Amino acid sequence: MNHITILMYCTDQKGIIAAVTNFMHHKEGNITYIDQYVDRPNGAFFMRIESDFIGNSFDLEKFKKSFNDEIGNRFSLNCNFYLKSQKPKMAVFVSKYDHCLYDILAKQQSGELTAEIPFILSNHSDLEIIANRFEIPFYHVPVSKETKANAENMQLNLLKKHEVDFIVLARYMQIVSSKLIDEYSQKIINIHHSFLPAFPGAKPYHSAFDRGVKIIGATSHYVTEELDAGPIIEQDISRVSHLNSIADFIEKGRDLERIVLLRALKLHVNRKVMVYGNKTVVFS
Amino acid sequence: MNHITILMYCTDQKGIIAAVTNFMHHKEGNITYIDQYVDRPNGAFFMRIESDFIGNSFDLEKFKKSFNDEIGNRFSLNCNFYLKSQKPKMAVFVSKYDHCLYDILAKQQSGELTAEIPFILSNHSDLEIIANRFEIPFYHVPVSKETKANAENMQLNLLKKHEVDFIVLARYMQIVSSKLIDEYSQKIINIHHSFLPAFPGAKPYHSAFDRGVKIIGATSHYVTEELDAGPIIEQDISRVSHLNSIADFIEKGRDLERIVLLRALKLHVNRKVMVYGNKTVVFS
Amino acid sequence: MNHITILMYCTDQKGIIAAVTNFMHHKEGNITYIDQYVDRPNGAFFMRIESDFIGNSFDLEKFKKSFNDEIGNRFSLNCNFYLKSQKPKMAVFVSKYDHCLYDILAKQQSGELTAEIPFILSNHSDLEIIANRFEIPFYHVPVSKETKANAENMQLNLLKKHEVDFIVLARYMQIVSSKLIDEYSQKIINIHHSFLPAFPGAKPYHSAFDRGVKIIGATSHYVTEELDAGPIIEQDISRVSHLNSIADFIEKGRDLERIVLLRALKLHVNRKVMVYGNKTVVFS
Amino acid sequence: MNHITILMYCTDQKGIIAAVTNFMHHKEGNITYIDQYVDRPNGAFFMRIESDFIGNSFDLEKFKKSFNDEIGNRFSLNCNFYLKSQKPKMAVFVSKYDHCLYDILAKQQSGELTAEIPFILSNHSDLEIIANRFEIPFYHVPVSKETKANAENMQLNLLKKHEVDFIVLARYMQIVSSKLIDEYSQKIINIHHSFLPAFPGAKPYHSAFDRGVKIIGATSHYVTEELDAGPIIEQDISRVSHLNSIADFIEKGRDLERIVLLRALKLHVNRKVMVYGNKTVVFS
Repeated sequence: MNHITILMYCTDQKGIIAAVTNFMHHKEGNITYIDQYVDRPNGAFFMRIESDFIGNSFDLEKFKKSFNDEIGNRFSLNCNFYLKSQKPKMAVFVSKYDHCLYDILAKQQSGELTAEIPFILSNHSDLEIIANRFEIPFYHVPVSKETKANAENMQLNLLKKHEVDFIVLARYMQIVSSKLIDEYSQKIINIHHSFLPAFPGAKPYHSAFDRGVKIIGATSHYVTEELDAGPIIEQDISRVSHLNSIADFIEKGRDLERIVLLRALKLHVNRKVMVYGNKTVVFS
Repeated sequence: MNHITILMYCTDQKGIIAAVTNFMHHKEGNITYIDQYVDRPNGAFFMRIESDFIGNSFDLEKFKKSFNDEIGNRFSLNCNFYLKSQKPKMAVFVSKYDHCLYDILAKQQSGELTAEIPFILSNHSDLEIIANRFEIPFYHVPVSKETKANAENMQLNLLKKHEVDFIVLARYMQIVSSKLIDEYSQKIINIHHSFLPAFPGAKPYHSAFDRGVKIIGATSHYVTEELDAGPIIEQDISRVSHLNSIADFIEKGRDLERIVLLRALKLHVNRKVMVYGNKTVVFS
Repeated sequence: MNHITILMYCTDQKGIIAAVTNFMHHKEGNITYIDQYVDRPNGAFFMRIESDFIGNSFDLEKFKKSFNDEIGNRFSLNCNFYLKSQKPKMAVFVSKYDHCLYDILAKQQSGELTAEIPFILSNHSDLEIIANRFEIPFYHVPVSKETKANAENMQLNLLKKHEVDFIVLARYMQIVSSKLIDEYSQKIINIHHSFLPAFPGAKPYHSAFDRGVKIIGATSHYVTEELDAGPIIEQDISRVSHLNSIADFIEKGRDLERIVLLRALKLHVNRKVMVYGNKTVVFS
Repeated sequence: MNHITILMYCTDQKGIIAAVTNFMHHKEGNITYIDQYVDRPNGAFFMRIESDFIGNSFDLEKFKKSFNDEIGNRFSLNCNFYLKSQKPKMAVFVSKYDHCLYDILAKQQSGELTAEIPFILSNHSDLEIIANRFEIPFYHVPVSKETKANAENMQLNLLKKHEVDFIVLARYMQIVSSKLIDEYSQKIINIHHSFLPAFPGAKPYHSAFDRGVKIIGATSHYVTEELDAGPIIEQDISRVSHLNSIADFIEKGRDLERIVLLRALKLHVNRKVMVYGNKTVVFS
């Protein structure tokens, strides 16, 4: 049996849902999920569909061609097709903090996060021990002013060599290069330790503490050229009070960061996120 | 019986708690609440104490003098004394939105918000009907470029005439004058319809929508010269998704605004908030 | 222009979505909302659709007949059709607590809750003053062992006379009669002041306090024969601690109750809830 | 330098706070934390105090004797004294689920959870691989009807041999024996995968699903004879909807369980919890 997920968007038009569902039935696909969203002010239509195809005769390339010929061209659809049997390959970039990394590895191991992890990359060697524990290749790629260009090349080579589908910055404390962002557009997921757009940039917990906020947050988003300004996938918050020191903010924040990042990764891996302008459509 | 609340702060020193509690016992006060907070990095001490005094012989002025002589001067304490029997007088400033106003009036009427409301003031006349329903004086003080100075004077006169203790801006859509802020320092409570410091100023729901956030917020704070930058009393949030329009943000936000504002008002009225730098200490 | 909402459910079958959307297009309806849910284990299909019909020629009865002939019978659909222009009529039952009542009246008045309120009914006369303020008819129908049967008849007569569509029990402290429940099946909405199924029945805050919970809740549900066991529409919670007395639980709970009840009422009034077994499908 | 924490409770009496703080000052202790709570209806007083003692001359046994002589006896105080330098020893009991175990080990390793873990014990061997990864002794103690008594003895022997201070049941799927509960009274911490007191016992997610709740929860509590009825330390919740299957409940629940359990463990390890009747006082 084959299970496919299709994400599509186009200008809102009459008859799309009927056309797509009719097509799936005609192809003997058993629709197991269908959801759509219309952004009326902008006249944009988004749809996510999951379907089972019984038997071994299913051929994705043929199906795509047929879908595009009959539906895609007619409605000027933008489509992405994903086979459930093909797990996405996720590179994990870290620095020295281990809390997000532990969560990613534990969830991946338990099967809750259905991605392969070809390697972990860090600008420090501190977390190599964790990579070893989980038997995942670890690359130490230090970044300094002088080595920056070289480091970028090493990163790009590793990503290509391992055929990486997307990158997670699991508290990676370096600005990612424009070249990387270009090549992995909408494919780099970051966790920022504040409730964006409040407190972008460095030391958000310190800024939150100084401002005297009563709630702190964390935000997972796709990385774009502008720092901490990319499309938001998921956010969550935690209460703080005057009793909490900066150290408390950081500790409470760690739990937020890992929970929010993992939620975002699961949504991405399960093909539930569509980027749209600088926003996301997140299907349930 | 008399019930008093004392809020005090000073430089952190050994022996303050013992001295204060010893003093209260000596005066035959029955301490019903005591809480303290020490900001260690800044060496500041904060304390809130509630005490009952049986009988009719209690004299607040005498007590204050005695307290200051024996404790206040020794520790260079800054103190405020409040008698429970004296409800604070709260002026309510509104514009056209009624959701916060309804909550304030309902909670005041049910006795949950222990304040007197000498009057409601608005730059519009729309909400006069609600004031009438609850039989509270309503003053319509329009504000335009030309009448601004005059309006300020009318406001100040009304506040003085009614011996107002503090002001709540219940979605009052005008910038309050510097003079008012000066005269009612730490005594003007605003509700801002965003999760500050994100989206200060006008139209925060529109900005939040444009940014594609997954959570919206509301913030109640004391008003200072800098717009939406005063000490935060309370914040809360609500989830949103791509399915929500700006109208949905505004509707969800209304519930947040009134809940957050009412919590802040109750904390203030119950003498649980101390302003400290640009932050608040909020006792439980 | 006419705006209609259709709620439908049936056994899950291929082709329903296509058939319904095709039908709507054929009738020149402009679909503004479509969402569906499939309960796979039970093979049940649910759908909610909103559509605009331009012009004045739209005739609901004709449309229903045509829909049932072409779609309903074919798929054995259970359907309900609602015209946006026909606001549902909601009777409000209360006892002595005013917090939910105030919220209902304020939200109805501001247009946020699109229902008509033909009358408020209470077994006490305390809240008549609020009904008067909002100029809504108030019926005092006391309930005692002796008058119970009589009171039920009065209630039923009032409900029929006013052509009431559904009833909200806004902290109405009486058990509603079986006859009423039968006649208004899935049309009586209650707010229970606990996180059901914890603490059903009387005095849930006292039970929660005795159990030492760290979180309290409120639950809005449709009333069925079994006490506090009907289909849940909405729930929410609030944190408590050892510092909170029973009085604090009750006060915090009041805010929960009114927020949760109002959310449930809005969902019901906006035709977003379908009852299914002892559960609800709540469309977004 | 020595850092001690004292937890104490007694009948509420005048002068306790003054007496304790005076004593600490007299002993040249630098109080870094002080908080107290009075349960007025029951006339019970609770206090938590942390204090630094400069220099090497501090002797805990001497201090305790002196404290008890001067303060403890006078007020009939129940006291517990803890040296920060002595980390508590925590045994971890698991079955097959790894999510809580991973979190415990990661947090312990990062220093966030200041406990020693002398061993992990399981009635299954599945998680031995994780214990090995983190280089912690693992004991496989199977439990069946026949081996139950024997297994209990093995457990008790291991606990004594390793001088275990408290036990965490990190999704340990066996009923703990009365003997163990007796010997480790208020020293066994469980995580139950529901919002207690709703859904005690087995399969709470299934029960929650069947009831159609809109919110699920997790509860960490001390284990007592009555199943899932011991003093609650911490609870939290997560929203669910009709869209979520039982599998979704379980997956969402996993995150709740580990977060709630870790919070409870940190509170316990940091000596912030006092058990009182069947409730807890949790200091901030």
